[in-house]
Amino acid sequence: MLEPLPDEREWLNDVLIRQIPLGGAMQLSIERLDETGIEFSAPLAPSVNDKGTAFGGAIVSQMILAGWSLPRLLLRRADIEADLVIGRCEVRFVKPVTGDFRVRCDWPEASSLAAFIDQVRARGRGKLELAPECLIDSEVAATLAARYAALGKDSGAAAPGARDTGARQ
Amino acid sequence: MLEPLPDEREWLNDVLIRQIPLGGAMQLSIERLDETGIEFSAPLAPSVNDKGTAFGGAIVSQMILAGWSLPRLLLRRADIEADLVIGRCEVRFVKPVTGDFRVRCDWPEASSLAAFIDQVRARGRGKLELAPECLIDSEVAATLAARYAALGKDSGAAAPGARDTGARQ
Repeated sequence: MLEPLPDEREWLNDVLIRQIPLGGAMQLSIERLDETGIEFSAPLAPSVNDKGTAFGGAIVSQMILAGWSLPRLLLRRADIEADLVIGRCEVRFVKPVTGDFRVRCDWPEASSLAAFIDQVRARGRGKLELAPECLIDSEVAATLAARYAALGKDSGAAAPGARDTGARQ
Repeated sequence: MLEPLPDEREWLNDVLIRQIPLGGAMQLSIERLDETGIEFSAPLAPSVNDKGTAFGGAIVSQMILAGWSLPRLLLRRADIEADLVIGRCEVRFVKPVTGDFRVRCDWPEASSLAAFIDQVRARGRGKLELAPECLIDSEVAATLAARYAALGKDSGAAAPGARDTGARQ
């Protein structure tokens, strides 16, 4: 379930860079995608702020995308047509990001992933909590606690009235 | 205290668009700056995602900047040299952003602002909580609850060990 498929890194890169222009603007790059999780590398320059450190919004954006990528791949591997959205999240900025940085998200326990897929198959929707991080020089600079929701396209679960499931990623 | 100065809209625009390239990439524009608060307008296209709605990270980025702008202007009006950083925030996505959108932040009560400035002057650091929002067709699409911290440049308050005050904006 956690082994990458041969074509998916290229597919995901296209989504993150081309279909989401801001990912391209931040020069986001998939550095690692394996059975432990995903990691992006990102240069400081396009995400810099007026102080010469990384803009908090850029850090949040990349953490949101790192987290989103994992269930997105899981749905694709399971051949499930679903929108995947972020509903609520909490961000902590721990230290300034003074140079090029990395953003990563680990796969959660296999039982959580199986429950997520089972929910989407059975009820047309499922939730998954993830905890992406931003690293500078191997130290944690920011953390995200985010809840992602999959809304099956054939189930009607994406109908109005679903709260906290607004934005796409 | 809340009346805009003649040159500050241009000054702030330069910070948001040029000194923070991601603000430029999102084509962020100051639509309103007055004694009630600040409002940006933003086209969907540069912030779009793979579903044709606004990427959550773009929405968060603009809400962070709208909130940050207010105390930043306040410090400038008070002629205080300080870094202004975001320490912690919570985001709720309420509904999809399907077109061009707006982001706004109202000035909090005058007593909060006065206390913030007094803290920075007296102790070299001050905190302010703000609640920017994202609007689509006059309806709230996302909210941010954020804590901003000013760290006086002459006070040593920005020394290492200050937690939750990492990223610039």
